[in-house]
Amino acid sequence: MTEFKVNTDAVRKVLDVVKAAGRDALTAPEGKLVADAYGIPVPGEGLAGSADEAARLATGMGYPVVMKIVSPDILHKTEAGGVIVGVKSGAEAKAAYDTILANAKSYKDTARIEGVQVQQMLKGGTEVIVGSITDQSFGKLVAFGLGGVLVEVLKDITFRLAPITRDEALKQIDSIRARELLEGVRGSAAVDKSALADIIVRVARLVTDFPEIVELDLNPVFATAQDAVAADVRIVVDFTYKPREQTRTHEEIVAGMKRIMEPKAIAVIGASNEAGKIGNSVMKNIVGGGYKGKLFPVHPKADEILGIKAYRSVKDIPGEVDVAVFAIPAKFVPAALIECGEKKITGAVLIPSGFAEANEPELQDEVVAIGKKYDIRLLGPNIYGFYYTPQNLSATFCTPFDVKGSAALSSQSGGIGMAIIGFSRSAKMGVSAIVGLGNKSDVDEDDLLAFFEQDKHTNIIAMHLEDLKDGRAFSEAAIRVSKKKPIVVLKAGRTSAGAAAAASHTGALAGNDKIYEDVFGQSGVIRARSLRQLLEFARGVPLLPTPKGENVVIITGAGGSGVLLSDAVDDNGMALYRIPEDLDAAFRKFIPPFGAAGNPVDITGGEPPETYKKTVRLGLEDERVHALILGYWHTIVTPPMVFAKLMVEVRDEMKAKGIEKPIVASLAGDVEVEEAAEYLYQRGIPAYAYSTELPVEVLGAKYKWARGAGLI
Amino acid sequence: MTEFKVNTDAVRKVLDVVKAAGRDALTAPEGKLVADAYGIPVPGEGLAGSADEAARLATGMGYPVVMKIVSPDILHKTEAGGVIVGVKSGAEAKAAYDTILANAKSYKDTARIEGVQVQQMLKGGTEVIVGSITDQSFGKLVAFGLGGVLVEVLKDITFRLAPITRDEALKQIDSIRARELLEGVRGSAAVDKSALADIIVRVARLVTDFPEIVELDLNPVFATAQDAVAADVRIVVDFTYKPREQTRTHEEIVAGMKRIMEPKAIAVIGASNEAGKIGNSVMKNIVGGGYKGKLFPVHPKADEILGIKAYRSVKDIPGEVDVAVFAIPAKFVPAALIECGEKKITGAVLIPSGFAEANEPELQDEVVAIGKKYDIRLLGPNIYGFYYTPQNLSATFCTPFDVKGSAALSSQSGGIGMAIIGFSRSAKMGVSAIVGLGNKSDVDEDDLLAFFEQDKHTNIIAMHLEDLKDGRAFSEAAIRVSKKKPIVVLKAGRTSAGAAAAASHTGALAGNDKIYEDVFGQSGVIRARSLRQLLEFARGVPLLPTPKGENVVIITGAGGSGVLLSDAVDDNGMALYRIPEDLDAAFRKFIPPFGAAGNPVDITGGEPPETYKKTVRLGLEDERVHALILGYWHTIVTPPMVFAKLMVEVRDEMKAKGIEKPIVASLAGDVEVEEAAEYLYQRGIPAYAYSTELPVEVLGAKYKWARGAGLI
Repeated sequence: MTEFKVNTDAVRKVLDVVKAAGRDALTAPEGKLVADAYGIPVPGEGLAGSADEAARLATGMGYPVVMKIVSPDILHKTEAGGVIVGVKSGAEAKAAYDTILANAKSYKDTARIEGVQVQQMLKGGTEVIVGSITDQSFGKLVAFGLGGVLVEVLKDITFRLAPITRDEALKQIDSIRARELLEGVRGSAAVDKSALADIIVRVARLVTDFPEIVELDLNPVFATAQDAVAADVRIVVDFTYKPREQTRTHEEIVAGMKRIMEPKAIAVIGASNEAGKIGNSVMKNIVGGGYKGKLFPVHPKADEILGIKAYRSVKDIPGEVDVAVFAIPAKFVPAALIECGEKKITGAVLIPSGFAEANEPELQDEVVAIGKKYDIRLLGPNIYGFYYTPQNLSATFCTPFDVKGSAALSSQSGGIGMAIIGFSRSAKMGVSAIVGLGNKSDVDEDDLLAFFEQDKHTNIIAMHLEDLKDGRAFSEAAIRVSKKKPIVVLKAGRTSAGAAAAASHTGALAGNDKIYEDVFGQSGVIRARSLRQLLEFARGVPLLPTPKGENVVIITGAGGSGVLLSDAVDDNGMALYRIPEDLDAAFRKFIPPFGAAGNPVDITGGEPPETYKKTVRLGLEDERVHALILGYWHTIVTPPMVFAKLMVEVRDEMKAKGIEKPIVASLAGDVEVEEAAEYLYQRGIPAYAYSTELPVEVLGAKYKWARGAGLI
Repeated sequence: MTEFKVNTDAVRKVLDVVKAAGRDALTAPEGKLVADAYGIPVPGEGLAGSADEAARLATGMGYPVVMKIVSPDILHKTEAGGVIVGVKSGAEAKAAYDTILANAKSYKDTARIEGVQVQQMLKGGTEVIVGSITDQSFGKLVAFGLGGVLVEVLKDITFRLAPITRDEALKQIDSIRARELLEGVRGSAAVDKSALADIIVRVARLVTDFPEIVELDLNPVFATAQDAVAADVRIVVDFTYKPREQTRTHEEIVAGMKRIMEPKAIAVIGASNEAGKIGNSVMKNIVGGGYKGKLFPVHPKADEILGIKAYRSVKDIPGEVDVAVFAIPAKFVPAALIECGEKKITGAVLIPSGFAEANEPELQDEVVAIGKKYDIRLLGPNIYGFYYTPQNLSATFCTPFDVKGSAALSSQSGGIGMAIIGFSRSAKMGVSAIVGLGNKSDVDEDDLLAFFEQDKHTNIIAMHLEDLKDGRAFSEAAIRVSKKKPIVVLKAGRTSAGAAAAASHTGALAGNDKIYEDVFGQSGVIRARSLRQLLEFARGVPLLPTPKGENVVIITGAGGSGVLLSDAVDDNGMALYRIPEDLDAAFRKFIPPFGAAGNPVDITGGEPPETYKKTVRLGLEDERVHALILGYWHTIVTPPMVFAKLMVEVRDEMKAKGIEKPIVASLAGDVEVEEAAEYLYQRGIPAYAYSTELPVEVLGAKYKWARGAGLI
């Protein structure tokens, strides 16, 4: 957090007055006092008792100024000749002071004169908005946008979590669509972004220090090449507002999650011998999946389930139990959960539905209260369960999953969870975990982030979610975790509910989805635009080595693919490397004379395998190149599997020399290219048949992550 | 074309003066003359000889006005008290006239007075730009955008082919992103769009009548609730410019294309018995594909190719030949093409590469000249050939394709063509034709449109292209054809080349890709955003019946899918139908009490097949519902294939009753859903596993087409 001096006492004093008066908004002068206390520039003003003082004050705040008579006996200042606008110099200020006093005297010679108010006149520059809102999920947010009616229409405004660093505030300023306008267009000067960033940082600090400030508008802020000044300060307060508190430490969260995800002993409450029952499926899957820990079926009558000794209650189980998987109807959950608490079981996987999602919020509240009382972490309810492959654990009624790998996935919805399982199995995607979060009565995405952060089996975290119970906790975790592992999120549901009711301008401009978008960006989260993209990113991104720089080169057999791949590079936030002459000449040695110069490197269609091999090897060997996109064109001369095997060969040859760069491939050709794409994918080269966009999207996601994590 | 009176003579006169003077731009007064001649409103002005006349003139042009002395003896009008601004009424105008004359007299009593100029003052309102540019491919275009620096930054400008109808101009105005601004924000009045449309129509007419006007800017146009007036007219001319001319009639194009696509007799020049040679592959594919017409191999020495009698030259072939497929090296093409001409063969399929794409433009020019001389239509060169399944014709070196259907596809690139073939085969996509266009030395996309328009086997046209040789011809064809059949285009290559060099403001704002985007929209062309989307649209769109209205309903087993499907509906330009109470109640009868109200209809996850069946049947039966999106969730109760078969059954049951509505499906579940999706797709219900976006994109494309064609 940026350090600067603030006067919290002054703000507290103002707020106390507002509170005592039972108001929910500050007056303009109160707003100015608050701004002054936090060093937020507002138009300068002062009271002059002499012509010299008027000139000194005016020079201090900068010209032009407006000067006004201050007298309890003169109500109509203008009529009295007591206002002079557009004063442009010290000499003019002195003259204006004398004129105003003379006019006042001649208007009413008995008037008591307190002096002349000198006020800075704001005009010119670019009008922007700085504001703050308080979001139910994310808490304090600062906003920045352009002012004026057009931007209101285009909603060109951007949000960040408060507090905020100066660097992040500068990034925020640069993230508006019309940023060009701040940099000077048609000969106008660039605004002082540093002054704007300073205001954002101070506003963020203010609302953090005083959470009761629930909305704030500086609108407009006049930004010029020299400074930025807020012409109007509007502050809305809610003295009942309390920021959400974290009840657990990071260590407690990790410890609790580890007992769920890596249990040494599991109880299955509602285990059953009857095929078709959930309690039977769960037992079969835990056993069949190869789980090596202790397993205790719990059943009111049976002595054995699937040949394993059963217990009447968890309380009868000898020794420690880490987690209980619930496979009983909703109404029986509270009683069983109390028994878990008494048994000191700290994790409950609540598969049953019939809670909040089924109009039974009270039942869910009861369960949550029991969980709190006994300090049991609750996963669900209303979930399919979870998979954790390093433990061979399939604690779910869905069939076991055994392709081990480094992608951890989660879903809020059971249906989407099933799609994740299906896709993963179909694509042979290596998975560390698949977790259902369902109603998120307790465990949610930030708990998962804490676990997967320290899980050495996980290299990417991909999440489907519809909302975040505690967006701030999620973001704080994501900022930390995304530095180490990519986090991809598919955020479903785009509504602006609540925005219409906002009291402030900033609030009215804040769409719910826009906040998610911006805070994800701030937190290093990669946002997937579709379910397939979430899945493809989970599959492809962890396979790619991290690029060491931004120089992307396309090597293609099909000119047409090269053009589409170039479009995709642009669409996915990368740029084609402008290949230096010597490297261009080196590529040209391998390709026919009519092959296209530059990037894409167009090796042309009729070339033998050797041409692919030589050019790709050159791209990998030359240290100025950081990533390769391959465009393969199916020909008789270089059939698909020949190409695929060759590429893996070259990649391995380079790897042996310590050279590792991300490679993705687009395969254009007849159906045989599908097998070739699969061959490449299974060997660490994300490859797609009939698509020029998908491989580039995967590479783009890797780049986005690497930039966010500060690795390039 | 909208009819209105214009004065072409007046414009011709102005342009003659400009031409004689060797200028390439008009002066401001010349611009005003041109605007007046075409009824484009510019600030009114007139010379008053009396106070009454001044009042009459001012009232005629609307207040406020500015009034100025006109005298050859008064140079400094303001100094002479000869200028009065902000005149607001007839009375003020009379008084101003008298004041100005009196001032002039007292300033210089000998001054000759010609009168007082009355000029309309423009201010207030919204600043917009109307302009025109001349594009190499599309010819005359009109542009509309908002004025001001912010829009320049955001490039919120839109283009249309000129001439233009009033309706299309109104649509153009509404297509800018900041359209809300024109409709009045923050209490300001809406602008008179009809007045703006009128200006656009007139500008379009002007540049069509006078093609030498290559750029035109009305910038700014002041638009108010009452009118729209161009404050400044800037016109750039190029007297050497000639619009492209069409050399063939529509009937000639269709006749020529039919002889290529539906030939009764084919010659293969370069036919070969030698495996691996292109001439061998082409022969094998034509024979193996099942072509039933006459086939004449041409070979300099062989007597038979694949057992078919061969000829030394096409000239030796007895009887008529419609098309010659070339499978010989580039350098031999000209001589063989001359022989084709002499044989009156009107179509040549030029497979060989080695022309413009390989730095041999002269060779291509030579071939084009021969084609022109003998009136031979040339497909290619540098192509894989083409497929036309209604004739079982595979005139290509790629393997035969035999899944007959209604999608006609084309590609500019061979690589992308191979991807089309591979995807089509893999997806069992029904195809009428796949055509390679390659270098487009002659036959191009508008020729294909003309053929597929009348081809009863084709119901959708999907094209990959990098540029359009003649964008205007393409658009004119597309406007006509898209009323009957959907046209989907993947436009590759997004550059703004040339824009920087433009002389006008409009020109500088015109990105090449933006013009394609806008003209495609105007022409009813659906733009695919990726190669996969082009292919999925070609596959899915023709399967769907045309919706009869905009009321889209989602029926889903998975709430999570419902949310993502809703997002996708929004993303793809549709809106969820607000289900009326009675219909909502009817749906509720079939679903559990905690199923969600409204749309999506959430039947919840654990439901038996009957619930899917009843709700889908209701959605199909109720005539207020126009399209269904299904979200299936894999459960033991309703396995994937049970769901799939049931959906086809309900669809067929309704079809038998004459009810046909588009249905698409998203399947979430384990790998078995892939088979179910395939089953549905093959039976006319576009269905995708693990994707909530793809089915909705396909439905959205159908809607986009139906709206453009005026069917809903």
